[in-house]
Amino acid sequence: MTQNIYDDPEFFAGYGRLRRSIEGLDGGAEWPALRALLPPLQGLRVVDLGCGYGWFCRWARDEGAAAVLGLDVSAKMLDRARSMTADSAIAFARADLETVALPEAGFDLAYSSLAFHYIADLDALLRKVHRALVPGGRLVFSMEHPIYTAPVRADWLVDADGRRTWPVNGYLAEGPRRRDWIVAGVIKHHRTLGTVVNRLIGCGFAIRRVEEWGPTDHQIAAYPELAEERERPIFVLVAAQR
Amino acid sequence: MTQNIYDDPEFFAGYGRLRRSIEGLDGGAEWPALRALLPPLQGLRVVDLGCGYGWFCRWARDEGAAAVLGLDVSAKMLDRARSMTADSAIAFARADLETVALPEAGFDLAYSSLAFHYIADLDALLRKVHRALVPGGRLVFSMEHPIYTAPVRADWLVDADGRRTWPVNGYLAEGPRRRDWIVAGVIKHHRTLGTVVNRLIGCGFAIRRVEEWGPTDHQIAAYPELAEERERPIFVLVAAQR
Repeated sequence: MTQNIYDDPEFFAGYGRLRRSIEGLDGGAEWPALRALLPPLQGLRVVDLGCGYGWFCRWARDEGAAAVLGLDVSAKMLDRARSMTADSAIAFARADLETVALPEAGFDLAYSSLAFHYIADLDALLRKVHRALVPGGRLVFSMEHPIYTAPVRADWLVDADGRRTWPVNGYLAEGPRRRDWIVAGVIKHHRTLGTVVNRLIGCGFAIRRVEEWGPTDHQIAAYPELAEERERPIFVLVAAQR
Repeated sequence: MTQNIYDDPEFFAGYGRLRRSIEGLDGGAEWPALRALLPPLQGLRVVDLGCGYGWFCRWARDEGAAAVLGLDVSAKMLDRARSMTADSAIAFARADLETVALPEAGFDLAYSSLAFHYIADLDALLRKVHRALVPGGRLVFSMEHPIYTAPVRADWLVDADGRRTWPVNGYLAEGPRRRDWIVAGVIKHHRTLGTVVNRLIGCGFAIRRVEEWGPTDHQIAAYPELAEERERPIFVLVAAQR
């Protein structure tokens, strides 16, 4: 079962202070790159796996999606999500993505932002998502990059010149990683990029795009602290098609 | 144009002392994993991009390949390759992979071992390879992994407990990297794994497999020095299909 850290009061409060929590989709620096992987949403039935506050669900409806289902394991996140819309074409449901049942061929697009690295059995979830998509349907997701999740100690090394270096070890050792992020003891699941790609192919997906995200010059000009994200990718964005 | 370091006398002599140079395919720890990506070779027309001593060309014929063309930029490597076979179904030709012309739909399999990281314009080569394959034809290759090629300083960090850490920086900054390997000033070309995958897809290839290679327990038992290769992948192996 997925660790439900988002319902931890201290985590929930801390998460709510992040730029992406306050500003929504535009508060995530990777959003323009992730949006670029999406098909036109007009008329699509969409499921958002790990919907959080529901920003994407509402945006998808604004873009013309026919119906959107937002799933999340966190009751607190869903309460917030429900409080922000009265749109009857958006449904929210509490679900552990490890065990949730999805209707066969029920969706044209499955979307997930920064949730898959919390999933222990990603293979099972991907097989379910494949069955839940219509033929030709898309899966577009972001997750923490394996370079980011691998290390035993996930902290920058800074040399005398201020150059930042990411200390990669344990890359081939897949499994849980305990991190202190907002609170102590957040459990993330490290798997290699090859594993993710091969599991998708094994489920029957065709790989359409793999983006190892980095900030644009424009983003770094606006937020200079993003520059370090060019030293190693923090996120990987993937588009696949059933 | 590709740097032709293999014709440097000091490099050529040093390269000849590596285990993979003396023992052939079985001297490369990644060979069993790369071989597993290959289709049955019986009757296939094969091109080996960067064939070196021609070990793979000869092995492919032993496996029943109909004809094998080995290409390499190094005259010294080709002299050695030619000296090791009298098989008239194996042809060797000197060629810079950046500028070589390949016959349209002339091959069923394109193979390349640890050559692509020497290529500045990989996109042009991949487009040529795609055209040179028959529909359904395979491209199977290994290259140095971007995690390995990225760093400004490509040296292990070793902590007080002997744990090895690979210092990743510059990952999103694609371009040449000057390395001291056998001799000083070997030029390798760093590009992200996402770029390689997306270029293949952009050429029309379907991705079949992406292996971030690491040694097996059995290999580490035989060669304990391989254990460090689990800390970060040194090679990536890719299978794609036209």
